Amino acid sequence: MYEFSFQNPTRIEFGIDKEKNMGRYMKEFDAKRVLIVFGSDRIKQSGLFNDVTTSLRKNDIQFTECSKIKSNPVLTKVREGIAIAKEFGADSVLSIGGGSCLDSAKAIAAGSLYERDVWDFFTGTEVTKALNIFDIMTLAATGSEMNNGGVITNEKTKQKYPIHGFSLFPKVSVINPKLQTTIGADYLVYSAADIIAHSIEGYLTATIQPELINLQIEANIKTVIRTTEQLLQHPTDLDARGEFAWATLALNGLTYLGTAGFSYPNHMIEHAMSAICDVPHGAGLSVVMPAWMTWYHDRNPKQFQRFSKEIFGLSTAEQGIEALRAWFNKIGTPTTLEQLNINQQDLKLIVDNAAQNAIDWQMSNIYSKQVIATILNLAK
Amino acid sequence: MYEFSFQNPTRIEFGIDKEKNMGRYMKEFDAKRVLIVFGSDRIKQSGLFNDVTTSLRKNDIQFTECSKIKSNPVLTKVREGIAIAKEFGADSVLSIGGGSCLDSAKAIAAGSLYERDVWDFFTGTEVTKALNIFDIMTLAATGSEMNNGGVITNEKTKQKYPIHGFSLFPKVSVINPKLQTTIGADYLVYSAADIIAHSIEGYLTATIQPELINLQIEANIKTVIRTTEQLLQHPTDLDARGEFAWATLALNGLTYLGTAGFSYPNHMIEHAMSAICDVPHGAGLSVVMPAWMTWYHDRNPKQFQRFSKEIFGLSTAEQGIEALRAWFNKIGTPTTLEQLNINQQDLKLIVDNAAQNAIDWQMSNIYSKQVIATILNLAK
Repeated sequence: MYEFSFQNPTRIEFGIDKEKNMGRYMKEFDAKRVLIVFGSDRIKQSGLFNDVTTSLRKNDIQFTECSKIKSNPVLTKVREGIAIAKEFGADSVLSIGGGSCLDSAKAIAAGSLYERDVWDFFTGTEVTKALNIFDIMTLAATGSEMNNGGVITNEKTKQKYPIHGFSLFPKVSVINPKLQTTIGADYLVYSAADIIAHSIEGYLTATIQPELINLQIEANIKTVIRTTEQLLQHPTDLDARGEFAWATLALNGLTYLGTAGFSYPNHMIEHAMSAICDVPHGAGLSVVMPAWMTWYHDRNPKQFQRFSKEIFGLSTAEQGIEALRAWFNKIGTPTTLEQLNINQQDLKLIVDNAAQNAIDWQMSNIYSKQVIATILNLAK
Repeated sequence: MYEFSFQNPTRIEFGIDKEKNMGRYMKEFDAKRVLIVFGSDRIKQSGLFNDVTTSLRKNDIQFTECSKIKSNPVLTKVREGIAIAKEFGADSVLSIGGGSCLDSAKAIAAGSLYERDVWDFFTGTEVTKALNIFDIMTLAATGSEMNNGGVITNEKTKQKYPIHGFSLFPKVSVINPKLQTTIGADYLVYSAADIIAHSIEGYLTATIQPELINLQIEANIKTVIRTTEQLLQHPTDLDARGEFAWATLALNGLTYLGTAGFSYPNHMIEHAMSAICDVPHGAGLSVVMPAWMTWYHDRNPKQFQRFSKEIFGLSTAEQGIEALRAWFNKIGTPTTLEQLNINQQDLKLIVDNAAQNAIDWQMSNIYSKQVIATILNLAK
């Protein structure tokens, strides 16, 4: 096992109606003025926004809004949120939505206590402080609710880059599986692909990988596969929703403990696809994964065979990869660039963009422009 | 899934030589005066004590000592530690040892900021504050390094009772697998029994038990079985030591998330055995578990069959129980009362004591004096 330092201070409040206590949770952290970050007005029509703000009012917490956060959240919106937060004198941010909302809220929280431009944090400047972060998750997938990172796209430079920092762990994350029952089948299956991608990046690339961690990751992947199928049949199955949400555990850090030598090639390539073509993150990942696995498996044959056996009960690496591709097809998340409407011209831009990511993420020793093109050609 | 609130703020510093940074870690929490809690002088002879105190001195942290903590730690010693901590004006406690040391340190930390007697916290009074707690684990088993509880025996009343409270989460726990290589085979196998007991109490008794949690618990148990066998062959295998230590994850709370309706019958009975006969906790548990499982399995037949199949590749509940008993025998942890030198007279006292635990832990609806006697008779 490799040495590590691990701490995850986020409090998870899991259960039906827990969002109605949000004001009380925030008051424990002396919240007085909060910026609420969300996407569409659907949360106002559904009553969710009212439930939450009623709880804020009861606890003497004032609020203002930053809305219209979109999937693949963008830097201009984050800057807008920071301006609102500073003007309002916010001490906290509250995300009501999925990973895109929360990632935006995290960047806003860091940028609101910073004099210069927030993009600095995505290009090397350390985050040392942030407004207190709270969230109510309406979509499970990214694990942002229990980690200290986020991803934002700079539309101008076409960079989809991460931000990290201990102060970006949410103070309290509310997971009410009932709020997630309204997710459409499309975003459910994209989320499934995302959680599987988070699970396999380390599992299939690490040079040091304790057996206990293998078993835990396999537990997560099996859970995602089972609950996705249950939810496609019965979207309101709260037990399945809950377990699906909890499998986002994949990104709370535990499944990387004691591992070393891993990399994130699928995310490295997918971020380029989202940055250039604005495809949903999970949809991009389900296209990249089988292609990358096909290209990579000879470098780690035992672990790929293990994946095939443990997840699908099959023998060879190739069979396991085909089974994953077939499962993606079955649940309805794309597996080809064509399904994402990515044409030859886009593809060139994506390769260039991913090659730059490979340099910035210190993966260019393996992932040259040519290798990335080869991988993406396997996804045609 | 059942609703829950989960937070585990402890920072784990895992790796070779990390104890030499303890002063630096403590300084991050403004430590200036610390009470060091430990067992025998072996840590002075081995150089460990010197390594740690050198690091404290470098960081201008003054220290005093409370030594001779024994396995099944006792209340009189805790009271002694509290007196020393108060006299010294300690702001922190540092445990160097196993679970007994750390449990004592936790009780001392709570008692040092309390005007009345510390035993109050074991009999209903809420712990609201404590000195900052740090630890260097020399024995993995109890999970105390990543949870908010501890267990102390009141020698006078023969009560072995727990203490809990959010402020009892250690601030920083150091796990250096190398420090654990000197553990004798006896305490290694007792620890294995302890971790398995922590894993199965919920697994075999919960009325609500998500599948993901089942898979995670099975991952833990498989890891303990594999690494125990590796360590009996090769005590200095650092990877196996590390994974064994990390399987104490069993008590960090994660494997109870979303579960409900569980109880701790094995601990309830074993605490009585330790309180009356001072047997090592893990040794007591390996005696109780197969007996309890034999008595209980008809109440939860599917889960016992699952245990048999997933852990040992067998078919029936009975076969799984026999396989566990055989494995305990193989590694050398006791499975009969006779091996613990518990005679008929002790047994009567143990039954009475456990029956009182059953009342205090609200389990007397199932565990009457007669039932406890029946279970213990299956361990003869």
